[in-house]
Amino acid sequence: MRSYTPVRFTDVAIEGRFWRERLETVLTRTIPSQYELLRETGILESLTIPVPPPPLRIPPGAHGLSMQVFWDSDVGKWIESASYVLAHRRDTQTEARIDEITDWLAQAQLPDGYLNCWYIGREPDKRWTNLRDRHELYNAGHLLEGALAYFQATGRRRLLDILCRYVDHIAEVFGPGPGQKRGYCGHQEIELALMKLYRATGTRKYLELAAYFINERGHTAPHYFDVEARARGEDPAAYWFSTYEYSQSHMPVRQQRTVVGHAVRAMYMYSAMADLAAELADDSLKQTCERLWDHVTTKRMYVTAGIGPSSSNEGFTQDYDLPNETAYAETCASVALIFWAQRMLHLDNDGRYADVLETALYNGALSGLSRDGTHYFYQNPLASDGSHVRWKWHPCPCCTMNVSRLVASVGGYFYSVGSDAVAVHLYGSSSTSLTLGERTVRLRQESDYPWSGSVKISIDPDAPTRFTLKLRIPGWARSASVKVQGQELPTPEVQRGYIELDRTWQAGDVVELELPMPVERVHANPLVQADVGRVALRRGPLLYCVEQIDHPQATLGLLRLPRDSALNAVTRADLFDGIVTVVAEAGEAGAGAAAAPLYANRPFDTRPATLTAIPYFLWNNRGPNRMQVWLPEI
Amino acid sequence: MRSYTPVRFTDVAIEGRFWRERLETVLTRTIPSQYELLRETGILESLTIPVPPPPLRIPPGAHGLSMQVFWDSDVGKWIESASYVLAHRRDTQTEARIDEITDWLAQAQLPDGYLNCWYIGREPDKRWTNLRDRHELYNAGHLLEGALAYFQATGRRRLLDILCRYVDHIAEVFGPGPGQKRGYCGHQEIELALMKLYRATGTRKYLELAAYFINERGHTAPHYFDVEARARGEDPAAYWFSTYEYSQSHMPVRQQRTVVGHAVRAMYMYSAMADLAAELADDSLKQTCERLWDHVTTKRMYVTAGIGPSSSNEGFTQDYDLPNETAYAETCASVALIFWAQRMLHLDNDGRYADVLETALYNGALSGLSRDGTHYFYQNPLASDGSHVRWKWHPCPCCTMNVSRLVASVGGYFYSVGSDAVAVHLYGSSSTSLTLGERTVRLRQESDYPWSGSVKISIDPDAPTRFTLKLRIPGWARSASVKVQGQELPTPEVQRGYIELDRTWQAGDVVELELPMPVERVHANPLVQADVGRVALRRGPLLYCVEQIDHPQATLGLLRLPRDSALNAVTRADLFDGIVTVVAEAGEAGAGAAAAPLYANRPFDTRPATLTAIPYFLWNNRGPNRMQVWLPEI
Repeated sequence: MRSYTPVRFTDVAIEGRFWRERLETVLTRTIPSQYELLRETGILESLTIPVPPPPLRIPPGAHGLSMQVFWDSDVGKWIESASYVLAHRRDTQTEARIDEITDWLAQAQLPDGYLNCWYIGREPDKRWTNLRDRHELYNAGHLLEGALAYFQATGRRRLLDILCRYVDHIAEVFGPGPGQKRGYCGHQEIELALMKLYRATGTRKYLELAAYFINERGHTAPHYFDVEARARGEDPAAYWFSTYEYSQSHMPVRQQRTVVGHAVRAMYMYSAMADLAAELADDSLKQTCERLWDHVTTKRMYVTAGIGPSSSNEGFTQDYDLPNETAYAETCASVALIFWAQRMLHLDNDGRYADVLETALYNGALSGLSRDGTHYFYQNPLASDGSHVRWKWHPCPCCTMNVSRLVASVGGYFYSVGSDAVAVHLYGSSSTSLTLGERTVRLRQESDYPWSGSVKISIDPDAPTRFTLKLRIPGWARSASVKVQGQELPTPEVQRGYIELDRTWQAGDVVELELPMPVERVHANPLVQADVGRVALRRGPLLYCVEQIDHPQATLGLLRLPRDSALNAVTRADLFDGIVTVVAEAGEAGAGAAAAPLYANRPFDTRPATLTAIPYFLWNNRGPNRMQVWLPEI
Repeated sequence: MRSYTPVRFTDVAIEGRFWRERLETVLTRTIPSQYELLRETGILESLTIPVPPPPLRIPPGAHGLSMQVFWDSDVGKWIESASYVLAHRRDTQTEARIDEITDWLAQAQLPDGYLNCWYIGREPDKRWTNLRDRHELYNAGHLLEGALAYFQATGRRRLLDILCRYVDHIAEVFGPGPGQKRGYCGHQEIELALMKLYRATGTRKYLELAAYFINERGHTAPHYFDVEARARGEDPAAYWFSTYEYSQSHMPVRQQRTVVGHAVRAMYMYSAMADLAAELADDSLKQTCERLWDHVTTKRMYVTAGIGPSSSNEGFTQDYDLPNETAYAETCASVALIFWAQRMLHLDNDGRYADVLETALYNGALSGLSRDGTHYFYQNPLASDGSHVRWKWHPCPCCTMNVSRLVASVGGYFYSVGSDAVAVHLYGSSSTSLTLGERTVRLRQESDYPWSGSVKISIDPDAPTRFTLKLRIPGWARSASVKVQGQELPTPEVQRGYIELDRTWQAGDVVELELPMPVERVHANPLVQADVGRVALRRGPLLYCVEQIDHPQATLGLLRLPRDSALNAVTRADLFDGIVTVVAEAGEAGAGAAAAPLYANRPFDTRPATLTAIPYFLWNNRGPNRMQVWLPEI
């Protein structure tokens, strides 16, 4: 059912300064520093079974659990990130590190294939007794993704073989057959990992296991998590989270109409559902995905494509409940939204999926990683009183490796290939070599995107070839012009977010796309109470914000943007690695407000002020700072 | 130092329909229903020592404590409220109930005078070991206030004698002398109760004990709560609330410059401080009170005079942090603010204190009681999605009896007497008889306040008498006109909130005050992020709000008020007992917003709508309802 296949990041050379710099930072700083922290915090050591497990070094987390039950997944995500690095450049030290981890895992693995270091080391008699809370299958999924990435980067299959033995064991334990457990994981993840494994190996039982987990989820006669709670001697009604909406297991997935619960769990599950819909041509799953997509993107998503406003469930609350300063908007959730968006895009070839993918990539996800590559946000609020700062590590370091694996593989989101078409989804200098039927086509893109909307694409087939070149016209673009071989096309038609150029392409062909990038005001739906009377600023795919540091003369919360004020894009070579800022004449309300009364019977005065906004993803890279995305409009 | 003394509510006959109706409801419905609930919930039964204590009926509250440690205070506050009823009209059933409680307390009291039913019944060996958390002295204070009120209403002193024996015991246990404990209560209350006892009896040791508790508070070499925690074998650093700001014991009271911590604790303490400042002519305490007053009223108070925005400490957070929907703004805190405001008013005779008193009375406090007199708000938010509703009772029923004792004694806030002056602070039909030197002066006020600003005051001294009649000109009034004997005064001068009419008054003199009451927009200081771009509506002392039920055609959150829209006061005989509503032509933003995208590059459309606002204190008297005080202005 997938008419397009993404071009793997390994086949895309990132050449533009925007992503090149970030990629370089992740390769040289992020991945090595993550390894050091995995070692320092005892996470790596926890794999060295059968050495007696060390005392827990991290205070027990919520619900009496240590974060240690998730540690296998952290290692799996680091292996995946590091393997993406190896795909860019081989590195014997990183390979040695992964091989050492592989040794530990090989030693830990039980004869039947079981491989969860927490349970093997600490509670060997309790495995598979608490799928609801203990992340066993989730850990398996991340280790599997890591093993696959390592195999794909290096061709070494020892780690993958270990994981395949584990998956084979899981396939024996779980399923609808006699003697099998009718369970599934409280934290979805293994489903999408199994789909990756299926696509890499073609082995259908992996797809079937993924389908089983998805199809079984949320059946309630009785609910599996109730059954296993009773088996543990617990009252299911005493469930610490109280509702299975938390893990999207409150009803069978095809009946789900609203995005609820823990955001990352939801996104990982929807990703697997989209994979299954594509591989099985399952219309009911596809329609479910589409409904859920509509719901989250029209009712429950920040303008940054952050999702999940609440810290209490790390997830969704009510429609239009999008508070700014307390926004949870976990980095992982935006990264996972990108995973899902890419799958939806390939299921349906509609630019609206790419629009959200791009918004999340440049805003809600990228904000999670500092410019120096070694500091992180877990939460990505849209306003801050200065107390929200990046950290070097976290007791639950999921976001660190999620953002690094995203950046390390960002090239994989640029291009897709169909049977007689090539689609360009993202812009920025890069080159790739595609196989289109029997032809090889080299594409080279030159663009300073996202700072500029001018894109030049050189097409270089090994022989003249007829195919459709699909160029995405982003949702933010009010207009677009296209030249082919220097000839401007008359009013190119945009179909579902793309312009289609169907012709016989030959070496030396050049397409030029011009996407004007004025700074624009974004208005939120009036039902979003948090944004009433406010506007956000956007230029191209980038959302902007104001930081206190750029406004030494004004109090950030008092800045007001007149509705008719001109919004100027100003290039600043001196800021970061050279960025485009937005500068506008604005006002500062209530000059001397701190000395003024709390309430008055007439509006407070406003004095002139200049507003300087920077891209949202760059905030808090100059120390603690007050910040706002949504600006009061006057 | 007090140049004015409030006229007790027992000497003021409330005749106007506004307060008459509410008083009647409290007398006939609230007080009896509270008694029934005290019985049903086991609170009364907990006093029947030495019967073995019954099993706890209420689940343990926070920090492993049962709410039961506060129960003596609930009984004390009910006795106080019920005694205020008895002051209005004798009632043998209520008296019998209080006498029965007195029997129980007499039986429970230990030979040394100690009287705390929790400790006597459950932990007799642990008394005075946890002043920080266990409310022993707080309970004593409320029982004492109740005993005093009962004595003043009936002349019966048996309960007061019991409490005086307890206070004598407390005065032996606590103090700076050898062998005494240098402690004070974690929840202030006894201090103001002791000041009442001092004023009622003239016994100076009660004043000295109150002064000791205030002066000792917050000294840190070492901190008393640390000392007693160590004596209990606990680490003081493990204090569940983590900061002594919670109980305003983080530093000596005279060093305190900002209102912090639990709001009710703060208000009760400041009330006692103002009492002490007056009785001891203590300028340092007076100045401390004034600084704290300025801080709370210019930085940390809702427009309703609700205070304490946060549920986590039931108290204060940061300057200008005044969220609307999550506002805690406990009923008790506004009631206690009224207590403090009245004391400040009599310390300094400045109308700004009366302005806050009146705002709290008609808004933040009165909203805590339903029209039927038997349902309550603990929190008083300024916006609601419909989920915030009044309850019949609460595991911690403090607010119920705080609002009933306020309403039952509301007449006590109307008038004050000075050496040669009479001050009128509140308006509304009422009459009183005052002693001014050797003369008796009857005052009779006729006014439909707060619905109308027309006030007629008849002055009837028993012989022609020269004195100054001070008439308060509320802060909300933009103008005022005064007639004496039908003659309009030329531009009366307002001094610190009052007009002063100094003349020889004789029987039959009539003063007419006209306070125009247009509906006005209130603007919040721009530093209040929650109210940016919004206005509130006020008419006279009443803040208004919109409820969904009055807007069947519109979505409440979408209502927008144009800046130039006329605001009309419309009397509605059909609503409640006849009220004045505010009606304005307004707009509904984003018609069809629920079907619209989440974000757009131009403002959403607005269609015409009519806005109808009701007084804030009346909200949620017609079932669950969405509600907003602050309206987006366009």
